[in-house]
Amino acid sequence: MSHNTFGHLFRVTTFGESHGVALGCVVDGCPPGIPIAAADIQAELDRRKPGQSRFTTQRREPDQVRILSGVFSDDRTEGRQLTTGTPIALEIENTDQRSKDYSEIRDSYRPGHADYAYDAKYGIRDYRGGGRSSARETAARVAAGAIARRILPEGVTIRAALVQMGPHAVDRARWDWNEVANNPFFCPDAAMAAFYETYLDGIRKDGSSIGAVIEVVAEGVPPGLGAPIYGKLDADLAAAMMSINAVKGVEIGDGFASAALRGEDNADEMRSGNAGAPTFLANHAGGVLGGISTGQPVICRFAVKPTSSILTPRMSVTQDNRDVDLVTKGRHDPCVGIRAVPVAEAMMACVLADHYLRHRGQVGERR
Amino acid sequence: MSHNTFGHLFRVTTFGESHGVALGCVVDGCPPGIPIAAADIQAELDRRKPGQSRFTTQRREPDQVRILSGVFSDDRTEGRQLTTGTPIALEIENTDQRSKDYSEIRDSYRPGHADYAYDAKYGIRDYRGGGRSSARETAARVAAGAIARRILPEGVTIRAALVQMGPHAVDRARWDWNEVANNPFFCPDAAMAAFYETYLDGIRKDGSSIGAVIEVVAEGVPPGLGAPIYGKLDADLAAAMMSINAVKGVEIGDGFASAALRGEDNADEMRSGNAGAPTFLANHAGGVLGGISTGQPVICRFAVKPTSSILTPRMSVTQDNRDVDLVTKGRHDPCVGIRAVPVAEAMMACVLADHYLRHRGQVGERR
Amino acid sequence: MSHNTFGHLFRVTTFGESHGVALGCVVDGCPPGIPIAAADIQAELDRRKPGQSRFTTQRREPDQVRILSGVFSDDRTEGRQLTTGTPIALEIENTDQRSKDYSEIRDSYRPGHADYAYDAKYGIRDYRGGGRSSARETAARVAAGAIARRILPEGVTIRAALVQMGPHAVDRARWDWNEVANNPFFCPDAAMAAFYETYLDGIRKDGSSIGAVIEVVAEGVPPGLGAPIYGKLDADLAAAMMSINAVKGVEIGDGFASAALRGEDNADEMRSGNAGAPTFLANHAGGVLGGISTGQPVICRFAVKPTSSILTPRMSVTQDNRDVDLVTKGRHDPCVGIRAVPVAEAMMACVLADHYLRHRGQVGERR
Amino acid sequence: MSHNTFGHLFRVTTFGESHGVALGCVVDGCPPGIPIAAADIQAELDRRKPGQSRFTTQRREPDQVRILSGVFSDDRTEGRQLTTGTPIALEIENTDQRSKDYSEIRDSYRPGHADYAYDAKYGIRDYRGGGRSSARETAARVAAGAIARRILPEGVTIRAALVQMGPHAVDRARWDWNEVANNPFFCPDAAMAAFYETYLDGIRKDGSSIGAVIEVVAEGVPPGLGAPIYGKLDADLAAAMMSINAVKGVEIGDGFASAALRGEDNADEMRSGNAGAPTFLANHAGGVLGGISTGQPVICRFAVKPTSSILTPRMSVTQDNRDVDLVTKGRHDPCVGIRAVPVAEAMMACVLADHYLRHRGQVGERR
Repeated sequence: MSHNTFGHLFRVTTFGESHGVALGCVVDGCPPGIPIAAADIQAELDRRKPGQSRFTTQRREPDQVRILSGVFSDDRTEGRQLTTGTPIALEIENTDQRSKDYSEIRDSYRPGHADYAYDAKYGIRDYRGGGRSSARETAARVAAGAIARRILPEGVTIRAALVQMGPHAVDRARWDWNEVANNPFFCPDAAMAAFYETYLDGIRKDGSSIGAVIEVVAEGVPPGLGAPIYGKLDADLAAAMMSINAVKGVEIGDGFASAALRGEDNADEMRSGNAGAPTFLANHAGGVLGGISTGQPVICRFAVKPTSSILTPRMSVTQDNRDVDLVTKGRHDPCVGIRAVPVAEAMMACVLADHYLRHRGQVGERR
Repeated sequence: MSHNTFGHLFRVTTFGESHGVALGCVVDGCPPGIPIAAADIQAELDRRKPGQSRFTTQRREPDQVRILSGVFSDDRTEGRQLTTGTPIALEIENTDQRSKDYSEIRDSYRPGHADYAYDAKYGIRDYRGGGRSSARETAARVAAGAIARRILPEGVTIRAALVQMGPHAVDRARWDWNEVANNPFFCPDAAMAAFYETYLDGIRKDGSSIGAVIEVVAEGVPPGLGAPIYGKLDADLAAAMMSINAVKGVEIGDGFASAALRGEDNADEMRSGNAGAPTFLANHAGGVLGGISTGQPVICRFAVKPTSSILTPRMSVTQDNRDVDLVTKGRHDPCVGIRAVPVAEAMMACVLADHYLRHRGQVGERR
Repeated sequence: MSHNTFGHLFRVTTFGESHGVALGCVVDGCPPGIPIAAADIQAELDRRKPGQSRFTTQRREPDQVRILSGVFSDDRTEGRQLTTGTPIALEIENTDQRSKDYSEIRDSYRPGHADYAYDAKYGIRDYRGGGRSSARETAARVAAGAIARRILPEGVTIRAALVQMGPHAVDRARWDWNEVANNPFFCPDAAMAAFYETYLDGIRKDGSSIGAVIEVVAEGVPPGLGAPIYGKLDADLAAAMMSINAVKGVEIGDGFASAALRGEDNADEMRSGNAGAPTFLANHAGGVLGGISTGQPVICRFAVKPTSSILTPRMSVTQDNRDVDLVTKGRHDPCVGIRAVPVAEAMMACVLADHYLRHRGQVGERR
Repeated sequence: MSHNTFGHLFRVTTFGESHGVALGCVVDGCPPGIPIAAADIQAELDRRKPGQSRFTTQRREPDQVRILSGVFSDDRTEGRQLTTGTPIALEIENTDQRSKDYSEIRDSYRPGHADYAYDAKYGIRDYRGGGRSSARETAARVAAGAIARRILPEGVTIRAALVQMGPHAVDRARWDWNEVANNPFFCPDAAMAAFYETYLDGIRKDGSSIGAVIEVVAEGVPPGLGAPIYGKLDADLAAAMMSINAVKGVEIGDGFASAALRGEDNADEMRSGNAGAPTFLANHAGGVLGGISTGQPVICRFAVKPTSSILTPRMSVTQDNRDVDLVTKGRHDPCVGIRAVPVAEAMMACVLADHYLRHRGQVGERR
């Protein structure tokens, strides 16, 4: 990862500001011959789209994606678009750019936002809607992730869910992946989802916001993805998830809980398996040992801080260093973690796709 | 980060196995004119060196570093070695390579270790002492970190400490950085350090091991380091820390605790400061907003799982998929997290040095 | 350079096919605060634009560039667009996409073109107008180059010219940079330009094509750009120029002629100069020694092969390996080298901009 | 390529100065399971070694290579060393470091050398024997190339030869690859080699030096290696060859001669071939079209300037900008191009190995 590009063989470069002309990405290094239609990408984008319930920002973004390059519909392939191996550029025009008064965030630094940091770095800042630091950038990630998914070998399933909102964690005994699509929180625990509805309404009415924890699980990942030392699968996942807006922590498998464990409780034991590979008797490792996938589910969790834009007045300073009290008006997510769920899946897909190609490059296909 | 290299402008490539001929690194992109002597690097290595107390492995590694290139002692600089801007190769010969019987770990997969993962990936594995996946590789990181520290602008201080062992966290009210050097745990809380002594003795006598949490703090970091999206300072820190052996989770600032916070408790408020820059009234963000440093202390914590090599027999399988019960004999750290403390400082230094140079490249020196 | 990206700190990723929806690029790592308008970029594009004389392809491409991101017009900067340090996406829609019969180039491999190579690599090929291998991609380079020029320190001038067409080289005694804009060949020798007019008419009427040599010169380049070994300025220039369509050779300074020289005729002697730096008495080196700029003009030349699309029937094979005789109809440049002139300037600008930022990163501003 | 690293999946990082402690490289990304012994690498190094005839520098460098890591001799593989997929560090100690008086080159800038450029860039310079800019660095390339060769699929042959010395080119009608090992010039034309003997003796006795042209040919390269635009095989070859010390020009296939050709003479015609692939009727393209290999021999040529160190006094300046006349004493190659021949093969091997792995990564094995 570097600047605005992530990946080595499957490389995604994103661009665009919240209220600029357009945002999007260029996906480079995609294998050829993969069927992809704008509608496939759109389906993923629609899961992330704001304004779908009262629990996400009411900003309306059609987020209509356009494929500019890298796919081709030969008349012998009967009109299906196939990737050609060349860069796939995806573009989403910004349409809901209200012409509004930005003078407050232009002159002042919103607490918890990147306003001051950008100014300190660049000396200039596109303040409209947060500019480049807006969570809108994640639309480009989701679009890229839709392509990444199609690169992975058959049998790989990537799913994410919200597992904690504020201090309220789901009950893992009630975990049901099918529930994730049944509530506006991507929550796998129906009972907890019902509770969140009331809970988040309260937060929203207070003009406040709340944090969350997201869990993303990749099943069917072949063993051997990742690489020692600085190409570790879990290190790349950590970077990928931490790069999502508002994320403050990432863990793999037992994560921070493993600090409290003794050796005999942590190391996953094995028994001989059917396919000539070991069967693991537990998955404290989260599917990664020594930075390399073991064939067990790859499990990653990350914490999302509460939305910084709240209606409570906060102490801040202006660009010219005067004290100011600031209320961030506008349409905001009371729990920005919710919309991070499809983003988490996309980042997992991108990391796995990149490592899948890198592994194939170094070791070939038959290991 | 990629394969065995991390960094973009300050680039470190490490090599070497636990029981091979030598290990080391090549540090590329170092600014010229920086005074550096092997003794400076050795001093950092000695902090990480095993066998210094009964709480770390009794393997004796002199870990004597040799500078092979990239420094020069002009007779007009009176014998002081200065970096020349060309690659600095550092080498540590492996001297304590006991000729012992490796047949057990050659044929079987140690639970919690990377043995199976390496075999699944490469079809071959240097099993002696864990080969490339041994924590011995971190010596190369510490050596590189010693150079990285010298690149950072004056006033940057990087310090790490062990803040939790097993379920026992330090009392932050008793935090004293001076205590870190006074106990074999790098623990900033003298009372807790005394407790750890008894506690870890018990773990060790049980033939078991225990996890830990390490905190690393960089003070004096200028605002503006890092970059949007995939060049985020916190994303690079997450990858850097997660790439350390046995690390399972990383967090910045409030980290996972921020999931339970409301917006008004999380976003750090500001008041006008003296130097024309805001004064932050708290540091929930851990010194990073939008992936860019704010001038506040950069705070990073990570969880280290318990050493997987323990004396309790564990269920496992052999390379040819037969069940086996395995006891990992040999000299092991009962809490491998302890020796991760200097490694944490090194990785923080490398990440900051790289971003410092990248920032200077893009924006120049006077911002 | 890698895949569709070049540069390290100043990074350009291009995308797009000849007859796809759009082509363009993402310019990442640009310093902030640089004034740039679409019109500035358009001016460079217009120099490269086909259809401006009878000596270039009659395909009409308005090549209207749109800036999608990375610039910002603060109302305090009175409407001027400034770069913000975030990725600048540039897009050129493809408008002149004649719906025509591509069946011939769909089924057959045009000699001298990349048709067979793409099929051998990817198993699929966007055959319309050459797809990704079309010289139309160079529009994106020219657009990026327009930004790169603005990054370079004041006093750097980059100019290119056509110095040979077929076997006919310009007379360097008649070299006049002002003539370059006065003829449709970017030729600095007015007399030779007049000759080319007749000469190329003949080639065109024969349904044939002809090769060319382009020279690009950067004056005012500060000494110290470039880096040893694999970051050499001349190695990067060689790659940059060789990556332009139809280029088959690149040389720096005396280039291939230096093979015939003796040591005393080749090494540029020096005398003490005014500004504390040496004055070179010649420039056989082309401004680069040991991969690092010396402050002399950086001089690079490259050979462009004749357009492969000609009206003479050529022996070829079909995709299913049957013999075929092929005439490439359509609108083609009789000398594709002509339009490589602005592309050469763009690539020189991109390479220098990247090295300028890299040097500033490693060494700082005051060396 | 960047700084001191080249390659993307097959990555080589070199280090070391001419008169430092040691030089060498780290080869990262090598596939596992490849048999390699130090003796294999040594055999390649010995071809490049100076002091083997009166036509190369009399500096005696045993150039004994040591493998520090990345290979493993399992007792089940009967003592053969196999690559493990982890970084292979190669080290060559510098043994012939005469303690001599360097004051002249310390204080003055040798014309044609990188002395001034390094000082201008870094403000410090390891002047002993040219430091990092010494051709001794190419030993590390040759060592890496020995590994790269073993990665390539069976049937790939890489051979280089000296095809021109001064103005005297070989007669291609007399080309015999077997002759290359029979004369001290790596010349494929026995008659011309006999002439070079007298010719170069004259140059040497004059205290002068002479340039050369080297040709490197890779046969059996599968079609499909390389990638569009900035991953072009020929662009990477151009960079790789231009990065060799003293190289001033690179060309592929017909190279600069193609500028003088008409389209019908340049584009290689095809007829249907046996294996379902086209048979090319010529190879003006040098085996690369659109940046991608065609299956024809990949042919690359480069020009090496005459050694800059000559016995004739040259005008120069001192570090403090005073005029000086300089004679470069010491042991020098009268034609440094000779020893570039094995280096050329190594660079070709490295570029092809990297592209072979990259192609396998993106497209898989069965295309």
